[in-house]
Amino acid sequence: VTSRQPLAVALLHHPVRDRNGARVTTAVTNLDLHDIARTARTYGVDRYYVVTPVAEQQRLVETIVAHWREGYGASANPDRGEALKLIEVVADLDAALAHWQACSGAEPLPVLTGARCRDGLDFAGCRRLLHERPLLLCFGTGWGLAPELFTQGWPVLEAIDGGSDYNHLPVRAAAAIILDRLLGVT
Amino acid sequence: VTSRQPLAVALLHHPVRDRNGARVTTAVTNLDLHDIARTARTYGVDRYYVVTPVAEQQRLVETIVAHWREGYGASANPDRGEALKLIEVVADLDAALAHWQACSGAEPLPVLTGARCRDGLDFAGCRRLLHERPLLLCFGTGWGLAPELFTQGWPVLEAIDGGSDYNHLPVRAAAAIILDRLLGVT
Repeated sequence: VTSRQPLAVALLHHPVRDRNGARVTTAVTNLDLHDIARTARTYGVDRYYVVTPVAEQQRLVETIVAHWREGYGASANPDRGEALKLIEVVADLDAALAHWQACSGAEPLPVLTGARCRDGLDFAGCRRLLHERPLLLCFGTGWGLAPELFTQGWPVLEAIDGGSDYNHLPVRAAAAIILDRLLGVT
Repeated sequence: VTSRQPLAVALLHHPVRDRNGARVTTAVTNLDLHDIARTARTYGVDRYYVVTPVAEQQRLVETIVAHWREGYGASANPDRGEALKLIEVVADLDAALAHWQACSGAEPLPVLTGARCRDGLDFAGCRRLLHERPLLLCFGTGWGLAPELFTQGWPVLEAIDGGSDYNHLPVRAAAAIILDRLLGVT
């Protein structure tokens, strides 16, 4: 068993689709920060990029993270700060990739996720990739990552199949399931 | 392959522990309703019991569910109502078990979950159980299910192991991971 390469996750608030398929920027939610940070920390993920081009939203994320890392929250619930310190706020995916390359020491490969990909990279294949080079696992808010991201030649992870005719997982749940399938000890 | 027996999940707001281990009743959160309902629906779970002894909180849950099933939400986002209609509000675990027995037609077995159980029922064992009788998978809010639940002789699912020294998954993430391990198509 060779040890895995570094893994980061990115939560994109732009470019993503709304329910009508239009290209939009979504608002950051407090829950997405906390839930995905806690899950990422539990699975030993190295970094959590919160991607938004909106300066006001970037400041909001910084304020929330500072509360839990250094403010009152740090003493009230230190475990929370331990998770939220994985967060790095960036303006776009290129900035996340550049930062992650600087941290991980090698060129990272983005791996896209979505609820509609039926013939994508399977989970075993993704685990193999993770032994070859650093990955940046990209999640979309809203109704998912915008189409332009799917024309870059990056691998797309196969959609989670819950065995039903319904597939509307919260992004927080999808991230948890995907990290468990890639990194969970069973 | 025999087909599985009916499966329901229960989210307990009482009796659970707070961060100091005290026995408390937590408040219902909107996110727990939506996230766990969407995940449950994706995995074909048959029912989602929201357990709280507080009448005012029970009414709040009914109001939220009605908004998405019959109110403005039903037309704005019908998928959401499709998930939230799994919700049944009950006062305690006994009421959930009685209701679930009436629905599923056989005596259901509660399966407890928690972040600390190291030698519990493993996931393969739980999948086997699910082919024998209806199960009620019980999740605790706050800092987890109260100790009194663990003295009833009910099986306790082994804790999720993320491979790190940190285990503070949100209950929404734990529910997603456990349902994927039990029911996911891989």
